[in-house]
Amino acid sequence: MPSDTTLTAPTQVREAVVQAVGGARAAAAALRVASAEHKQRALRAMAAALRERRAAILEANARDVAGARSAGLGDALIDRLSLTGQRLEEMVVSVDAVAALPDPVGQVLRTTTRADGLVIEKVRVPLGVIGIIYESRPNVTSDCAALCLKSGNAVVLRGGSESFQSNTAIAAALRTAVASAGLPEAAVTSLPVADRSAVDVLLTLDHLIDVIIPRGGEALIRKICETSRIPVIKHAKGLCHVYVDQAADPSMAQRIVVNAKVQRPATCNAMETLLVHEALAPTVLAPMLKELQDAGVEVRGCPRTRELVPGVAAATEEDWSTEYLALILSVRVVGSLDEAIGHIARYGSGHSDAIVTQDEQAAERFLREVDSAAVFLNASTRLSDGYQFGLGAEIGISTDRLHARGPMGLEELTTYKYVVRGTGHLRR
Amino acid sequence: MPSDTTLTAPTQVREAVVQAVGGARAAAAALRVASAEHKQRALRAMAAALRERRAAILEANARDVAGARSAGLGDALIDRLSLTGQRLEEMVVSVDAVAALPDPVGQVLRTTTRADGLVIEKVRVPLGVIGIIYESRPNVTSDCAALCLKSGNAVVLRGGSESFQSNTAIAAALRTAVASAGLPEAAVTSLPVADRSAVDVLLTLDHLIDVIIPRGGEALIRKICETSRIPVIKHAKGLCHVYVDQAADPSMAQRIVVNAKVQRPATCNAMETLLVHEALAPTVLAPMLKELQDAGVEVRGCPRTRELVPGVAAATEEDWSTEYLALILSVRVVGSLDEAIGHIARYGSGHSDAIVTQDEQAAERFLREVDSAAVFLNASTRLSDGYQFGLGAEIGISTDRLHARGPMGLEELTTYKYVVRGTGHLRR
Repeated sequence: MPSDTTLTAPTQVREAVVQAVGGARAAAAALRVASAEHKQRALRAMAAALRERRAAILEANARDVAGARSAGLGDALIDRLSLTGQRLEEMVVSVDAVAALPDPVGQVLRTTTRADGLVIEKVRVPLGVIGIIYESRPNVTSDCAALCLKSGNAVVLRGGSESFQSNTAIAAALRTAVASAGLPEAAVTSLPVADRSAVDVLLTLDHLIDVIIPRGGEALIRKICETSRIPVIKHAKGLCHVYVDQAADPSMAQRIVVNAKVQRPATCNAMETLLVHEALAPTVLAPMLKELQDAGVEVRGCPRTRELVPGVAAATEEDWSTEYLALILSVRVVGSLDEAIGHIARYGSGHSDAIVTQDEQAAERFLREVDSAAVFLNASTRLSDGYQFGLGAEIGISTDRLHARGPMGLEELTTYKYVVRGTGHLRR
Repeated sequence: MPSDTTLTAPTQVREAVVQAVGGARAAAAALRVASAEHKQRALRAMAAALRERRAAILEANARDVAGARSAGLGDALIDRLSLTGQRLEEMVVSVDAVAALPDPVGQVLRTTTRADGLVIEKVRVPLGVIGIIYESRPNVTSDCAALCLKSGNAVVLRGGSESFQSNTAIAAALRTAVASAGLPEAAVTSLPVADRSAVDVLLTLDHLIDVIIPRGGEALIRKICETSRIPVIKHAKGLCHVYVDQAADPSMAQRIVVNAKVQRPATCNAMETLLVHEALAPTVLAPMLKELQDAGVEVRGCPRTRELVPGVAAATEEDWSTEYLALILSVRVVGSLDEAIGHIARYGSGHSDAIVTQDEQAAERFLREVDSAAVFLNASTRLSDGYQFGLGAEIGISTDRLHARGPMGLEELTTYKYVVRGTGHLRR
């Protein structure tokens, strides 16, 4: 795999990308039939290689960080981009954890034995070649490579151009490890071209790549969906709501609301809008917003909220559809459960939404009628996560409805085939 | 819903299509939470309405057939287009059969109870709005409407323009029935515009339609995949193989080969290429090909085949990648199991492929290594079918890998959501 970052002529870029992805396609055929033990051995070697190449990886990362600084990129981006010894060790631990998970491939999902003796098994098999397009975090490179290899897929990785040196160094370590375990090194393929046009080429290769999983901001995902000829599983925005029903336990509601907003506000499963039933608002809203404000949250409220809690800024129409990913919260007082469900249907992103209530009927209506990937009763939206859900791992949270919805683990990186065994069975 | 077939100005077409699909989107919200009993009542009414409107439907169909004849369309197409009293009765029976199937919506796919008491359920829910684009068979209208309604989805139907009158009459009957059962009639929406540009508009409505399922020929499917901004589940070609291994039972092999080719050659799961191991070819090939030729099959063989069976025409390179859908068969003698698997990997379409053998090791290698939606041991590829597999129904056979692979029944028309119940659970 060439790592010539100076390729920029369209033909050169195209050829380099097609060659790299073609390699991944060929590797997928070997991975598809590799045994669980064989893949596990490769994953252990991948973890070890990251540790062994620690110096080279940190050095490559330092070059990326220096480049990002001289390009004037922001502190938040540089923080996401930066590797430390500790972050690298966390990457090692993650790969080892994936190695220890049960192998999803070969699981029999259903067996049907017909009266005439024909046996039909539905068996889990790998998807094939998975393209991951992401932004600046270098740990995505090793996390995704590990999850794809464990599930028998070849992966084509394309990180942000600002992290090109880091990703290339990480992928090189992983590839050597895969080869040392006797699997094709192209099972982990990092696009060998820094130029942004490489992504455009990638998205045309629908005969070589089975699915694209984009991980990143809205603009990246929109661009990919608009141009890709390959199926995309979107990991788009999380505009999550907590609805405090009239029958909520006030202190439980406050704990959940604070956790959903404050515990890690930059994540897609953090609450962006709080809805409070008007019957409870006069008693719960003031202490709730005070605790949030004390935690540094900027509150923007509807007129009723502002009447009840003086000093709150006014929410605009735009606020209801804004994913802040920050310590900002929009708050609306609603007249009924129906109004809450209607607000979520209109402004939500179908990611994760919660109700706090002791009223079983209200709870069941909310859980049934709110059409989101995850709906919660008396629990924080922050629990919407593959690890929290017991999937053992997470490649992201799908906001699509087809194939995978909500947290995606190893199973969601597979498909199935029907294996049918007869003794001369014919169609009559 | 207007049924003015004279709309052709782009703006008029666009408005009519957007309005119709918008209606389906709104209906989907009601269908999503409709009870199993309610949907079953609607389906019974749909079956009854088809019977009651028999005269009007047959009359509309006669107009389509007359139009097709005067447009000079071929006999095969006119046969697929034509309804008779018996064909209409079969449509009624199919809708009734779907009514009687178990409802997939609300099924709990998995329950995880965490040590801390949080209960996470993975629950089957409808996809939303399903677009079906098909060619001339009017029975697809009622079959797909029934399957989509049963699975809680609204459907947008777009048949071939030559069957526009038939489809409009069938959809009108179904809509009246749905409304009489107290569900929104737009749950069954047939595009109100005969003009072909209506499909182009449809394929841009990715905010209103969740998935497109095309049922038709290769050209239709290619066009849809190239232009759609909505996810597509392809039902593309079936280039199916039967491999007769050296350890095959010769008489079983002959029965399977004849069944796979002759029983219904125009279907996607019929055999197009026969592969025979060279060790068995001298004894089995001549009687096998004789029986096929006696059944009207035109055989095109590789050089070895033509040596063994004089009078067979020569297969060209193109033959190996041709889906005949007719009484034509290409035949190749192969030197090994590996050569057979390699031939299928190179020329197959990943639909349905079979091995005939008594050798368990060869069987298991074939079943594992051939990467098709359905793989068969000692059974005819013609068994690749939702009904045969016990799915209870079939909307088609997916040749895609994402979401649904192989025969698609009601379950494949659903997605899932996570329903999480806590008692004040937070993320730590």
